[in-house]
Amino acid sequence: MIPAKAYAAQNAKSPLAPWSFERRDVGPDDVLIDIAYCGVCHSDIHQARNEWGGATFPMVPGHEIVGTVAQVGANVKKFKAGDRVGVGCMVDSCRECAQCKADLEQFCEKGMSGTYNGFEQDKKTPTQGGYSDKVVVTQDFVLSIPDNLPLDAAAPLLCAGITTYSPLRHWKIGKGDKVGIIGLGGLGHMGVKFAAAFGAETYVITTSPGKAEDAKRLGAVGTVVSKDKDDLAKHAGSFDFLLCTVAAEYDPGLYLGLLKVDGTMAVVGAPDKPLNLHLFSVIMGRKTLAGSLIGGIKETQEMLDFCGEHNIVSDIEVINIQQINEAYERMIKSDVRYRFSIDMKSLAA
Amino acid sequence: MIPAKAYAAQNAKSPLAPWSFERRDVGPDDVLIDIAYCGVCHSDIHQARNEWGGATFPMVPGHEIVGTVAQVGANVKKFKAGDRVGVGCMVDSCRECAQCKADLEQFCEKGMSGTYNGFEQDKKTPTQGGYSDKVVVTQDFVLSIPDNLPLDAAAPLLCAGITTYSPLRHWKIGKGDKVGIIGLGGLGHMGVKFAAAFGAETYVITTSPGKAEDAKRLGAVGTVVSKDKDDLAKHAGSFDFLLCTVAAEYDPGLYLGLLKVDGTMAVVGAPDKPLNLHLFSVIMGRKTLAGSLIGGIKETQEMLDFCGEHNIVSDIEVINIQQINEAYERMIKSDVRYRFSIDMKSLAA
Repeated sequence: MIPAKAYAAQNAKSPLAPWSFERRDVGPDDVLIDIAYCGVCHSDIHQARNEWGGATFPMVPGHEIVGTVAQVGANVKKFKAGDRVGVGCMVDSCRECAQCKADLEQFCEKGMSGTYNGFEQDKKTPTQGGYSDKVVVTQDFVLSIPDNLPLDAAAPLLCAGITTYSPLRHWKIGKGDKVGIIGLGGLGHMGVKFAAAFGAETYVITTSPGKAEDAKRLGAVGTVVSKDKDDLAKHAGSFDFLLCTVAAEYDPGLYLGLLKVDGTMAVVGAPDKPLNLHLFSVIMGRKTLAGSLIGGIKETQEMLDFCGEHNIVSDIEVINIQQINEAYERMIKSDVRYRFSIDMKSLAA
Repeated sequence: MIPAKAYAAQNAKSPLAPWSFERRDVGPDDVLIDIAYCGVCHSDIHQARNEWGGATFPMVPGHEIVGTVAQVGANVKKFKAGDRVGVGCMVDSCRECAQCKADLEQFCEKGMSGTYNGFEQDKKTPTQGGYSDKVVVTQDFVLSIPDNLPLDAAAPLLCAGITTYSPLRHWKIGKGDKVGIIGLGGLGHMGVKFAAAFGAETYVITTSPGKAEDAKRLGAVGTVVSKDKDDLAKHAGSFDFLLCTVAAEYDPGLYLGLLKVDGTMAVVGAPDKPLNLHLFSVIMGRKTLAGSLIGGIKETQEMLDFCGEHNIVSDIEVINIQQINEAYERMIKSDVRYRFSIDMKSLAA
């Protein structure tokens, strides 16, 4: 559990105090950001609770960071004080390997620097995330937030947004495609918005019949209830593409059966345990099961610009940092539509 | 077990007797083939022993059929008596659905007619395969065997050949690609020959260090021993494409770790039981696990023509039908390099 009260207590001592021992000085290529809001990602829970192992403490979670620029280093040309900016899941990478040069920093061959619970490129200095008042990030990993997007609802774009935008773009989803978004949570609701915005005939595939109305409001044309055999049979072999956002255990064959010949199911949710995959479910119909991980910096900016043009943000519930433990418990019960966004002013409360 | 002696015994009664009750008359679009050789596929064992369930008996296995045309129907223009021909895993399909029209009859929406242990398109008349003296097949499902290929070694091209050729073509494997063929058996040895012929830097990935010499002879530049952790580490993240021919249970994560970012592992072997797939193994590196099933009729002819141009056949051991049960036992122990081909003259012995 995150010792939420400790944030406020430490913060009370000095406006710059709480994690200044980890926060570096603003170097020539750095941007100092006053954090306004930070989205709460399910992976924050996994890491804060060390459910994936290897967590380093003290840990400040948060990789859906938005705010305004407070100060820039001498070499910084892209940003100036007052700019609305964001930081996602990465704060640096080697910038020299084939993946970095291909704008796929998330697959940096030397390892990207995760925004928190990771290390700077020196592989020694721990990184700390966005449940904080300020953060220092090298300019190449800072994103611009379009002026028309409210900051609180834009925050989740930095992870939930790019995680769903990237595979839909990579597999060239658009008009004429029948697309299913599996799971309607923080990731899934963004997937529905993007797939619909790209012109796809979009369905929500969910275990909960109660989400049908919300699915339509978000842009879906219909819902497939995955516990309903008739519903599955009706849509069998009919989807071009599925985006699976489920992070719990499931039977991938159930969903692969919904795909057309040569269809693709891309997974962005990562269950802790391995799934049982019967290979016949991909052999019959030459189907593809593929993974996708966030997106590169260039594509993240492209996604934010697309959101600006199309007025796309996340559906959020704003909380104070003092509510974070309760928020984690509610997320585990899927009791949020669809993302918590922490108002960082509450740190000073 | 196949009652091998029964074949000979029945056959002795009359040159046309054994399964004439199942063999239809030669219709206007049909070709009557005198079978010369039939390859022995591992799936013959699964079906003869009803290991996949739903088998229909009496069953004449065999879907790697080669021989010469004995007689043609009035409408047959493609073939004449004496032509060298082959029949693979299918003998018909609906010919009207989107898949049939896209030359993917193996994925016919109404169900293709398997060469044996299946039904004609009337969904009633059982089909019987190539462990026989003759077979009647509609002309559109009969293939031409190039003149320069010996019939005995060409037989396995009809299943093992197309099963490995098709995915290598579909994923556009060629010069500049580092390709791994996982498993060096009936399918795998054909995969090595094709990948090398397409210009790929081809490796055999095997549990048996003893296969390194054979791998080179078949066209591989090297071998990766999958039980050797150092070998796996040396090749980690280096392959563009993997073709997995293994039909026993395995850990797909072991092989997915060998792929580059955006790499693909295509599976053509179908283990009876589901595999344990940890989704991180595809999410990290945006990797693909895909299936492939034989190939359409047009592509099968393209493969045979390619084999003719490049003098590619299977490595075989010719047996008599009386040795079939022993052959099955040896195949289960991987004791064949690399395919049995039955000399169908032995039926008359």
